[in-house]
Amino acid sequence: MFSLTIRDHMMIAHSLRGEVFGPAQRLHGATFVVDATFRRAELDADGIVVDIGRASEALRAVLGELGYRNLDEEEGLAGMNTTTEALARLIADRLADAALSGGLGDGARELDGLAVTLHESHVAWASYERPL
Amino acid sequence: MFSLTIRDHMMIAHSLRGEVFGPAQRLHGATFVVDATFRRAELDADGIVVDIGRASEALRAVLGELGYRNLDEEEGLAGMNTTTEALARLIADRLADAALSGGLGDGARELDGLAVTLHESHVAWASYERPL
Amino acid sequence: MFSLTIRDHMMIAHSLRGEVFGPAQRLHGATFVVDATFRRAELDADGIVVDIGRASEALRAVLGELGYRNLDEEEGLAGMNTTTEALARLIADRLADAALSGGLGDGARELDGLAVTLHESHVAWASYERPL
Amino acid sequence: MFSLTIRDHMMIAHSLRGEVFGPAQRLHGATFVVDATFRRAELDADGIVVDIGRASEALRAVLGELGYRNLDEEEGLAGMNTTTEALARLIADRLADAALSGGLGDGARELDGLAVTLHESHVAWASYERPL
Amino acid sequence: MFSLTIRDHMMIAHSLRGEVFGPAQRLHGATFVVDATFRRAELDADGIVVDIGRASEALRAVLGELGYRNLDEEEGLAGMNTTTEALARLIADRLADAALSGGLGDGARELDGLAVTLHESHVAWASYERPL
Amino acid sequence: MFSLTIRDHMMIAHSLRGEVFGPAQRLHGATFVVDATFRRAELDADGIVVDIGRASEALRAVLGELGYRNLDEEEGLAGMNTTTEALARLIADRLADAALSGGLGDGARELDGLAVTLHESHVAWASYERPL
Repeated sequence: MFSLTIRDHMMIAHSLRGEVFGPAQRLHGATFVVDATFRRAELDADGIVVDIGRASEALRAVLGELGYRNLDEEEGLAGMNTTTEALARLIADRLADAALSGGLGDGARELDGLAVTLHESHVAWASYERPL
Repeated sequence: MFSLTIRDHMMIAHSLRGEVFGPAQRLHGATFVVDATFRRAELDADGIVVDIGRASEALRAVLGELGYRNLDEEEGLAGMNTTTEALARLIADRLADAALSGGLGDGARELDGLAVTLHESHVAWASYERPL
Repeated sequence: MFSLTIRDHMMIAHSLRGEVFGPAQRLHGATFVVDATFRRAELDADGIVVDIGRASEALRAVLGELGYRNLDEEEGLAGMNTTTEALARLIADRLADAALSGGLGDGARELDGLAVTLHESHVAWASYERPL
Repeated sequence: MFSLTIRDHMMIAHSLRGEVFGPAQRLHGATFVVDATFRRAELDADGIVVDIGRASEALRAVLGELGYRNLDEEEGLAGMNTTTEALARLIADRLADAALSGGLGDGARELDGLAVTLHESHVAWASYERPL
Repeated sequence: MFSLTIRDHMMIAHSLRGEVFGPAQRLHGATFVVDATFRRAELDADGIVVDIGRASEALRAVLGELGYRNLDEEEGLAGMNTTTEALARLIADRLADAALSGGLGDGARELDGLAVTLHESHVAWASYERPL
Repeated sequence: MFSLTIRDHMMIAHSLRGEVFGPAQRLHGATFVVDATFRRAELDADGIVVDIGRASEALRAVLGELGYRNLDEEEGLAGMNTTTEALARLIADRLADAALSGGLGDGARELDGLAVTLHESHVAWASYERPL
C-alpha cells in the first residue's frame, strides 16, 4: 500500500460545548497544522499516488473555507461541535468529495482511502481515516 | 476510524541484557517522548474520542510511576528486559487498564484500541498497538 | 553564555487591526507554541541557569492568563494589536517581572536576559529578546 | 503489534518524466529523510523487534547505493520514474531482501512487515508498506 | 530586539568542488528547508516586524529562481561552490536587496538585519546572518 | 556571520545533587539530542564553515566518551553536577579543544566560536556558547 501526505495549516476561532471541555468552552482559537494522506494500492501510470500539485490546491481550498473565521458563526457548521476530531472528519470528507468529483485529477478516483490529521499543539493531535 | 494522540515524556535509567545490545548493556538512560493514541470508530456524544484532560492525567500517572527511576531496580519490572518496545507495551497495557476501569471517563470504555510510541532519540522510536 | 529553554503553548482567539493583515482582520485564532529562553553568563551554585520547575510554573501562569480567551475582549490588552510579535514581548516582559520579583527563585535575579518565541504555525514564528 | 522505526537520509539528483510534474521534469534533486519501520506481532527472545544496530547498517547500505548520485544515470533504475513513492517501494523491497537473506539477524526472518517513508520536505512525504 | 521567521523550501541538483566533499563531488541534490528571519529593534505602526505576506512572496520568488534546477548549469552561479553556507548567504543577500528596494513594503527598509538558515537534512543545517 | 550545525545524540544515566532537582536527585537518565554549531565570519577556500565529515566524527567521538554510561561513576566527571547546562559546556569545550588541536582540519583553527545545545526532551533544552 502506498500513501502520499501533504501538510498545510489554518487558523480559526471557536468554542466547544460540553462540560468536558472546561476552559475551552470559552471563545478561543487554534492553529491546526493539517496533514492530508492519500492512499492507494498501486501507483498510477506516472508512478504517483496523486498529483501533489492538485492535491495541495484542493487541501488549500478546503482550508480556505474554514480559516481566518470564527467557526461558531459559520452557517455550514451550525449545530456541530467543532472539536479537532470532528474537523478532521469534515476536512477528510470534503477532500473525498473533491477526489470523487475529479478535482484531484482522473487518477485520484482510484484512491483507496484518505486520512486527515489535525495537530492542535506540539502535544496533541487527532486523525480521521476513511475509505474512498 | 478516529484517533486522538497526546504527548508526554519520562526520563529513566536502565541497562539491557543480551549481547545484541552492545554498549547498551551498561547502565545508561533515556528520555522517552511518549505518544499515546486512542482509537474509536465513532465519536462520543461530545464529539470526541476521549476526554483529553483525563487522558493526559492518566498518561502522566503511568509515566510518573516509571520516570526518574533506575528501572533495573524496580520490583514490578523484575526479570523484564526494559527495551523501548517492551516499555511501549507496558505503558499501553496500563493505559488500557485505566480506560477499562473508568479512569478515562465512562465513554472511554468504548475505545476500540490504543497505541503507544516511545521516541528514544531523533532517529529511533518503537510502538505497540492493541485492541481495547 | 548559557541558556535554558522550556516549551509550553496557549490557544487564543483574536483579530488584527490594519489592512496589512488581510483576512486575519476577521476574528480567528491561533495555537502559539511558546519557547521561553533564560540566559546567564555563569551557572548558579546548583549548576543551572534557572530552576526548570519554577520557570515552567511561571510560564504556565503567564500563558494561563491569556489562553482559552478572546484577546479582543481582554481589558488588560485594550488598544493593543495582538500580533505574534507583540505577544512575544508581552510574555517576555511578564516573565521578566516574575524573575525580578523572585518568582523564579532567588538565583533567577541574576539572569542576564530572556527571549520568547511564539510559533504560530509550522511555517511562521516570532521572537522578542531583552536583557533582565 | 510491535514496530521499530529508524531514521536516516540520502541526497540525490533526478528528473521526473510526465507533464504532471511541471518544473520537476527538469534535473533537480532532493534530500530524502528516510524512516524504515519494522513490524512483528511478538518480540523476539531479547525483547526487541529487530537488532537496531544491524537494521541501521542495512538501511545505511541501501541508501549508500542511491545517495550522492544522479538517479537518471543509474543503470539499475533505467526506465523507472524515481518518484518519492517509487523510491519508498524500492528501499522497502531492498530492506525486505536483506531481512529475508539474514542480513538483519536470524530473528528478522520472523518480521511480519515493513514500511518506508520518504520525507521530501517539511510539507510532503510518501510511504510504502508491505508484508515480509 | 524582535524577529519574525518564515519557512519555505527548494529542491535542487548540484555538485561540490573540492576533495573535502568526498562523494558530494558527484552530481547529487538536496531539499533545502529555508528559514528566513527578519530582525528589527522596534515594531512598526502595525505592530509587526514585516508584512508576513510580502515577506513570504519575496522568499518564494528568491527560491523560485533556484529551485527545480541543476545549480551547476546556472549562469548566475558560475564559479561559485554552491555549499549550504554559500547558498544561505546568496538567499540572504537577495532578500536584503528586496527589502532595500521596497519589495517587502516601505516599513521593511527599517529592518536591522536578517538571517537565513538552510536545513539540508534532519541532522545538518547552515546559517548566514547580516545587517540590513 | 556564518554557522554550520550538526546533530547527534547520546544516552546516559545520572543523578543530580541539590534539592532544586526534586525527583531528579534519584538515579535516572536522559537522551540528549546534541546540536553542535560552528561559527566563523568568512567561509574558507572551499566555501564552508568546517568540514562536516570531520566535525561529525569529532562530535561522535566526544559523545562516545559519555554515552551508554552512568555519569555518576565517571572519574573524569567526579564532583561535577551533570546538569544539561553543564554537559553543554563540557561538550563545547571538548569540541573547542579538538578544533584548536587541528582535529577538525586546519581551517577549523579559524573558527570564531561554537555553541552546543542539548535537548533533554521535546519541551526543554539548554545551550552553551563560547568563542574559540
